[in-house]
Amino acid sequence: MSAHGVATDGERLARAALSRLVEPGHLGVARMLAELGAEELHRELSRETALPHLHDELGERLRAIDPRRELEQADRLGIRFVVPGDEEWPTALDDLAAAEPLQQRGGVPLGLWVRGPLRLDAWAGAVAVVGSRSATTYGTAVAGDLVAGLGRQGVGVVSGAAFGIDQAAHRAALGSGTPTAAVLACGVDRVYPEAHRDLLTHLAREQLVVSESPPGAAPMRVRFLARNRIIAALTAGTVVVEAAVRSGALNTANWAARLGRPLLAVPGPVTSAASQGAHQLVRSGAATLVTCADDVLEVLAPVGQRWSEAPRGRDRPRDALSMAQRQVLDAVPLVRAAPTGSIARAAGLGERAVAGHLDRLADQGFVERREEGWVLTPTAVD
Amino acid sequence: MSAHGVATDGERLARAALSRLVEPGHLGVARMLAELGAEELHRELSRETALPHLHDELGERLRAIDPRRELEQADRLGIRFVVPGDEEWPTALDDLAAAEPLQQRGGVPLGLWVRGPLRLDAWAGAVAVVGSRSATTYGTAVAGDLVAGLGRQGVGVVSGAAFGIDQAAHRAALGSGTPTAAVLACGVDRVYPEAHRDLLTHLAREQLVVSESPPGAAPMRVRFLARNRIIAALTAGTVVVEAAVRSGALNTANWAARLGRPLLAVPGPVTSAASQGAHQLVRSGAATLVTCADDVLEVLAPVGQRWSEAPRGRDRPRDALSMAQRQVLDAVPLVRAAPTGSIARAAGLGERAVAGHLDRLADQGFVERREEGWVLTPTAVD
Repeated sequence: MSAHGVATDGERLARAALSRLVEPGHLGVARMLAELGAEELHRELSRETALPHLHDELGERLRAIDPRRELEQADRLGIRFVVPGDEEWPTALDDLAAAEPLQQRGGVPLGLWVRGPLRLDAWAGAVAVVGSRSATTYGTAVAGDLVAGLGRQGVGVVSGAAFGIDQAAHRAALGSGTPTAAVLACGVDRVYPEAHRDLLTHLAREQLVVSESPPGAAPMRVRFLARNRIIAALTAGTVVVEAAVRSGALNTANWAARLGRPLLAVPGPVTSAASQGAHQLVRSGAATLVTCADDVLEVLAPVGQRWSEAPRGRDRPRDALSMAQRQVLDAVPLVRAAPTGSIARAAGLGERAVAGHLDRLADQGFVERREEGWVLTPTAVD
Repeated sequence: MSAHGVATDGERLARAALSRLVEPGHLGVARMLAELGAEELHRELSRETALPHLHDELGERLRAIDPRRELEQADRLGIRFVVPGDEEWPTALDDLAAAEPLQQRGGVPLGLWVRGPLRLDAWAGAVAVVGSRSATTYGTAVAGDLVAGLGRQGVGVVSGAAFGIDQAAHRAALGSGTPTAAVLACGVDRVYPEAHRDLLTHLAREQLVVSESPPGAAPMRVRFLARNRIIAALTAGTVVVEAAVRSGALNTANWAARLGRPLLAVPGPVTSAASQGAHQLVRSGAATLVTCADDVLEVLAPVGQRWSEAPRGRDRPRDALSMAQRQVLDAVPLVRAAPTGSIARAAGLGERAVAGHLDRLADQGFVERREEGWVLTPTAVD
């Protein structure tokens, strides 16, 4: 049992059993749970005659589950089961109670199975970084820069440990000292995809691995869909880095929007199919365009707090000129030299004053004197 | 004199003389012109004692200008001077009267010097395509695709004949049969930049070259700034393809916004400085993100008319399945096969029905039977 636990033993046991019984994001269970509470729901479902609108075998299956043994086995694997009321419970997840279901899934999870030294309630200021499994070199590089930049500002990153952008996000986090959590669609003791065995082992040992499904649960599409809402709900906002038009990352994006969490998207070449989904999110107004960690933090920072400044471009010597000097400079020809008089007329200033300005502009390297008059130097042409 | 002319001779001559006298976008002249009319303003300025708030030499210089000779010389070069009231005058330019000045320039032009077989009033439904002079291969390729796509829908393109995006836009237009006009910051008989001699000759012969400055006028910064407002005002909207943070293209973008014309920007790699200005326009809400000609036309099309459909991604066989079949499919494990009973429980459906669905899903190649039960086929994993 978790050392942080403040939920009652009965509550935790009931939730552990129900977590083993039904798929994550089951709307009927969420509804009954809100009505009856976990222990009462557990009792109701365990009766010989189950509630008519649930599957008949449920009672029998529930009676066969020994939640105390489940929790002990999990504990031996270094896995804790965090439930509402626990000190470590992220209250941000409670927002899921009011969010509109998506693909018949939704609701606050019964609890989360957690493995790793970081706390589960540490991600309310973190950012979800998600994207295409078939990411491009551009996408994985941008995801990596973004994550490292967030880490430099002390902001953690949550993702889903999938191929592509997820992997790039977790890897960059590990390489840059950015706290990172992986939310899985299978049990936290399972490895999926197999190629990420080292990554997942590492995350479980040094960071955090989270799942709504109990230990041993296999990856399944229904679990991926339910998992995405946890990624969106755990964090302050979701950034989509590369998503094709039907990418699973758009499911997470949809959940962020349903939860009223800021949704952000990184643009890319319009010639890249991998960026089409991100561009569509920006075009439709669903997402804000971001190009770097500072942009992300500017959107997520509390109102009035400015994290990022609009890039100003390099300062140019021209910026230091007076209004009159610029007026003169603007009237100097780019190619064929003109006499002082004609420049004065074009500038709308007196010829004597213009002659003085031209001398000073020449000293500063903006204009040069030719036989026929004055012309811009190549560098002043901008 | 233009064959399309309906403005009086006196009016045209007065405007031609004033066009030679003052720089384009001169706010004082625009104000007095609106107050006095062109002929009266010409008379006032020609007097021995000029108006006190204009430069003293003005009267003398104006008296030295022979507008009838100017127009005859222009005509010999195939250049016509189009003024308000002419049949060929683009009334869209009159919007400049109400637009807030930018960098002390603004107002409706006195007239436009025009060379080429196309009409000057043909661009109200056209699109301005502008961008960085130091464009990347990506930017020039995207500009070319965009222009060709606009041309396929019968939409013309206006640009500024500069290096980079402008050049790519005009070249693509010529190559794809898209009508195109170049608005210059020098006289329409001048060549700037020199490297675009062939391009400009071609445009003057087959398309349209336009300038607010009279023939012979040299390129000057003040003329570029004034020129940009003509590009924005002539067209239905402005697309920025690649613009660094301090690109001149942002000046044109600013004019489009001041004129209430739609402003659009093409995203690019966030790692490319050439796309920073475009990203900033989208981020700030000044511009709408566009990725192709259809996106542009969707924004510019009259309300209710839909030119473009959101990309749907390829149809997947999954889309053809019934709700129940999908529910079953979602509950089939991705890696380790599960027996029918466990799949039925995860799907929340009766075991017998699920067995039937699984057989049909196997026939369609979504699932396969193993000794231990059912598992998704590799293609069904998405």
